[in-house]
Amino acid sequence: MNVASKVSQTAGKHSPLEEEIRKLPIPVTSVFLGKDGKIRPAAFRETDKTLVCKGHDRIAQVFSKTVSKSRSIILEAVAGAESSSVTGKRVAVLFSGGPAAGGHNVLAGLSAVLGRGNTLLGIKKGPKGLLNSDLIEITPQNVQSILNLGGFDFLGTDRTKIKSPQQFEQVKATIVKNKLDGLVVVGGDDSNTNAAMIAEYLEQEGVDCSVVGIPKTIDGDLAAGKHLPISFGFDTASKIFSELVGNLTQDAASAVKYYHVVKLMGRTASKITLEVALQTKPAIALISEEIAEKDMSLESIVDYVVRAIVERRKKGINHGVILVPEGLVEFIPEMRRLISELNRVLAEYESDITDLPSLEHKKEFIIPHLTAASAQLMASLPDEIQEMLILDRDDHGNVKVSQIETEKLLIEKIRYRISEMKRHPDKFFGEGKIPATPQQIEDFKKMSLSTQSHFLGYEGRSSKPTRFDAAFTFLLGLTAGSLVLAGKTGYMAAVTDFDKGGRILGLPLSGLITVETRKGKEEFVIEKSLVDLDSPSFGLFAENRDRWAGEDLFSSPGAIQYWGPTSRQIPIIVALDQDYPDFGTFDLGEEKEIKID
Amino acid sequence: MNVASKVSQTAGKHSPLEEEIRKLPIPVTSVFLGKDGKIRPAAFRETDKTLVCKGHDRIAQVFSKTVSKSRSIILEAVAGAESSSVTGKRVAVLFSGGPAAGGHNVLAGLSAVLGRGNTLLGIKKGPKGLLNSDLIEITPQNVQSILNLGGFDFLGTDRTKIKSPQQFEQVKATIVKNKLDGLVVVGGDDSNTNAAMIAEYLEQEGVDCSVVGIPKTIDGDLAAGKHLPISFGFDTASKIFSELVGNLTQDAASAVKYYHVVKLMGRTASKITLEVALQTKPAIALISEEIAEKDMSLESIVDYVVRAIVERRKKGINHGVILVPEGLVEFIPEMRRLISELNRVLAEYESDITDLPSLEHKKEFIIPHLTAASAQLMASLPDEIQEMLILDRDDHGNVKVSQIETEKLLIEKIRYRISEMKRHPDKFFGEGKIPATPQQIEDFKKMSLSTQSHFLGYEGRSSKPTRFDAAFTFLLGLTAGSLVLAGKTGYMAAVTDFDKGGRILGLPLSGLITVETRKGKEEFVIEKSLVDLDSPSFGLFAENRDRWAGEDLFSSPGAIQYWGPTSRQIPIIVALDQDYPDFGTFDLGEEKEIKID
Repeated sequence: MNVASKVSQTAGKHSPLEEEIRKLPIPVTSVFLGKDGKIRPAAFRETDKTLVCKGHDRIAQVFSKTVSKSRSIILEAVAGAESSSVTGKRVAVLFSGGPAAGGHNVLAGLSAVLGRGNTLLGIKKGPKGLLNSDLIEITPQNVQSILNLGGFDFLGTDRTKIKSPQQFEQVKATIVKNKLDGLVVVGGDDSNTNAAMIAEYLEQEGVDCSVVGIPKTIDGDLAAGKHLPISFGFDTASKIFSELVGNLTQDAASAVKYYHVVKLMGRTASKITLEVALQTKPAIALISEEIAEKDMSLESIVDYVVRAIVERRKKGINHGVILVPEGLVEFIPEMRRLISELNRVLAEYESDITDLPSLEHKKEFIIPHLTAASAQLMASLPDEIQEMLILDRDDHGNVKVSQIETEKLLIEKIRYRISEMKRHPDKFFGEGKIPATPQQIEDFKKMSLSTQSHFLGYEGRSSKPTRFDAAFTFLLGLTAGSLVLAGKTGYMAAVTDFDKGGRILGLPLSGLITVETRKGKEEFVIEKSLVDLDSPSFGLFAENRDRWAGEDLFSSPGAIQYWGPTSRQIPIIVALDQDYPDFGTFDLGEEKEIKID
Repeated sequence: MNVASKVSQTAGKHSPLEEEIRKLPIPVTSVFLGKDGKIRPAAFRETDKTLVCKGHDRIAQVFSKTVSKSRSIILEAVAGAESSSVTGKRVAVLFSGGPAAGGHNVLAGLSAVLGRGNTLLGIKKGPKGLLNSDLIEITPQNVQSILNLGGFDFLGTDRTKIKSPQQFEQVKATIVKNKLDGLVVVGGDDSNTNAAMIAEYLEQEGVDCSVVGIPKTIDGDLAAGKHLPISFGFDTASKIFSELVGNLTQDAASAVKYYHVVKLMGRTASKITLEVALQTKPAIALISEEIAEKDMSLESIVDYVVRAIVERRKKGINHGVILVPEGLVEFIPEMRRLISELNRVLAEYESDITDLPSLEHKKEFIIPHLTAASAQLMASLPDEIQEMLILDRDDHGNVKVSQIETEKLLIEKIRYRISEMKRHPDKFFGEGKIPATPQQIEDFKKMSLSTQSHFLGYEGRSSKPTRFDAAFTFLLGLTAGSLVLAGKTGYMAAVTDFDKGGRILGLPLSGLITVETRKGKEEFVIEKSLVDLDSPSFGLFAENRDRWAGEDLFSSPGAIQYWGPTSRQIPIIVALDQDYPDFGTFDLGEEKEIKID
């Protein structure tokens, strides 16, 4: 066969790597293995641990059926009886929200544990497909073709939230129509909250269908301490971002002229940024949670960054990498206030503002309605950011915070500050300010600051899963399937103890949920797991960052490996915060070639 | 040792991957191996092939000394005599231009072949260091620490062109002062032209120093057919871009709502785009060389893209990936004319235009000075692009073509066209236009087009080299060192026959150079190796692209592997155009553990 034919044959997910990784074995925790070494469902026993969040009294009222059933007790998987085998069950699975690496192995795990005796169905295009009853049967051949591959493309996904009574009825209709005994929801905090609500609703309606959630999100903010160290997809995404950031640190030191300012996807939490910083040791990494804790202003963040740039410059280094978490803006208290005032003004005077012909007119109208501090902050922002704050609104008329180009905002502010320092060095250098010799100040005045901005996000969501994420998700699928077969509802599948064979848990979803009041309305949410400033991972970062800022000490962790000595790494922050002995390897059981038939 | 200590120890390029890949063996072509299996310099013999470009008569005048010495004959390496060993030579090496993966292995190859008997020096920060005599000695320990690692950071690089008589004198001064017997220039087309000039100058000045070039550029546009299939760094960069584009194709099909428009670095040539397209099979890939050949207008490019989007939509696909080569704008003939007119007007009326207070005033002034066709094109461009064309100038006052955000220009034009089609479907659908049923037109009117723009570039330049680039660059270092020790000057090191053990050549640099007249001035340049529309690689793309546009047939080649079954791939376009039997592997000789001492 010639090269042209070989290339043509790679179309449709048959690249050399895709062909090979389909064959990779996957570790299986012992509770899922029969004496014959074959995969079979686990059974569950109650542990002596319960799981509840603050405000649980209210949760126990709203989720009365599921809470009284689970009594908030964490379940642990144990080997099932050799003889028992449930058959005839129909289980449907859906993806919800943004893709994360490993989703397809969840399907594989489900398919493997359900076996021939039960039926696995896939819901197309996320929760929307659940409403519309858009289901297909997933065959063993399907699963074999997507094993270890990335993306959610086998089923698709969307972000529909199931909220209205009518929607819940549609869900019930789909479940009844398709005779579903189980519904597995692969999603983030919102989707798992939704799963808990569906579980409760079905119980109240007397529909016998187990609802089980699976913790997915590259952001890593869906986690439960020792019970669930991290969500799936985080390892893969943070490794891809680390590869790219590592390359940029090396490129910065090679081209010796750029500061690369890199915004990293990850929504609210800065966990991805923290992990990437520990992997790559950039000149600067901003952690939103710390900025909020210290009540830092935008100007004080700029201070901090510029001071590092100046100190590096004094050592002859005029390049580096600056990491910015996606959610930063919402953690700067003064920006939060400004945005909330803007949301209020824009709602209150919607038609006035819409009618005004130009951006300038709109600004003129809005400014007097802000507090003085917010007006001053608004006026200090670059034009494009002001424009975005005023013109880009979401469906509820609110500022689209996630769309704010924080990396460009910071670049503008840093450039402006540096030009100011060049014009007025006396204001910035000297005693009690930045120490510098006259020669260093002269050098600084000759400095030119070249910047490149980057946003890393989509390229990290649909990669082929790392060996760790591939194993983790397969086990989550086995767990969810086992929970359904055991008739459990309102649980989230969880895997923990990545360092010693894996421990399989069922976490009562209602125990993860808390109640918040938003705009006077009660909202049920799973509390986001943010960067804990007292954690070992943040501690290690805080301890080392000045050293990394002071000189080039980057490391470049490179591309995700599927074979060889570095292919079994887990996230550094997980190893640190779970007190594992190593981040270079994991143990989730005996490796098995996966043949689904 | 606990995890915190382990993480701290990874600082300064000691990530687990970096530690392991330093140990990877590298293949060595037999001409560099003695009977004892150890590396030693090759000798060179003249082949029966000469290398000349068009206008060689003029080249033979300007490069009279080096041309008469080389007689434009290609040299081939042969095993050196077992007994011969040159010692006491001092050889300096510099990096020039943008980083490319494998530069450090060039140093390793040089160090290995020079051995203990000679001295290897590194010139810091590129050609600037050559002017300033900024040299360090490179020790075997240095080399061992950067073996197989990415970046140019061990020496740094810059883009200084050596042009003025004074600069040539400075080069001579550095060479004399440091008693250099050899100068190795690692660079792209400009830098290698510069190397040829330095070689000629030193000959004319009677300075006995061999100057040898090494073909580096991720763009892949420095190549010489069968004699040099590709430059180093192309394989690594195109594999990183393919990884990311592959992830985006998978993400697009998962999230089922975005078109990702990806601009790919690669300056003038579209080779990177072609390679990435063959690796990933995106919905659309634009190839600049074809657009120029067909004299396509901006509007006709938009036509082409929109038609593909509409056809996909008719099949229910509202997502995909569109690849755009960095150099596109310069290949659209009407854009080229506009830019050249703008350059003329901006030069002629510089002070008028500078004095005008606003962009609107400047536009008002400029438009009447353009031809009607260019004025119309200018007016059709989005505001930001017009602003960039008028306000962003390089040091020579010219439009900064490489800064034009082509991906955003295309997005704007596509969005506008689609909204026009929704408003006036009769103009676009129907007989002789886009065929569509009334239902398909109604569906189309409901379509929302969500786009995300990306620019991939810096993250591909300083990655750790692929196994192929690591081998290729080590051999280029061995070749350059051998050429210097053999007293050859004015050659470029080359490696070919990647499929059968490697063949080592010395290409006379003057044979790669042609003469162009730019602004009435004679300029010497190495002709860029662009995408050949008659090549097998373009042919395969052209044959398949409609199929890839019509449905999701993407493949996702994944991260670069250093171990395992997919770690030895070479660029698809190289395998196709060189008529190799496979792109899945290469043969550049026997693998050796590299111990430099």
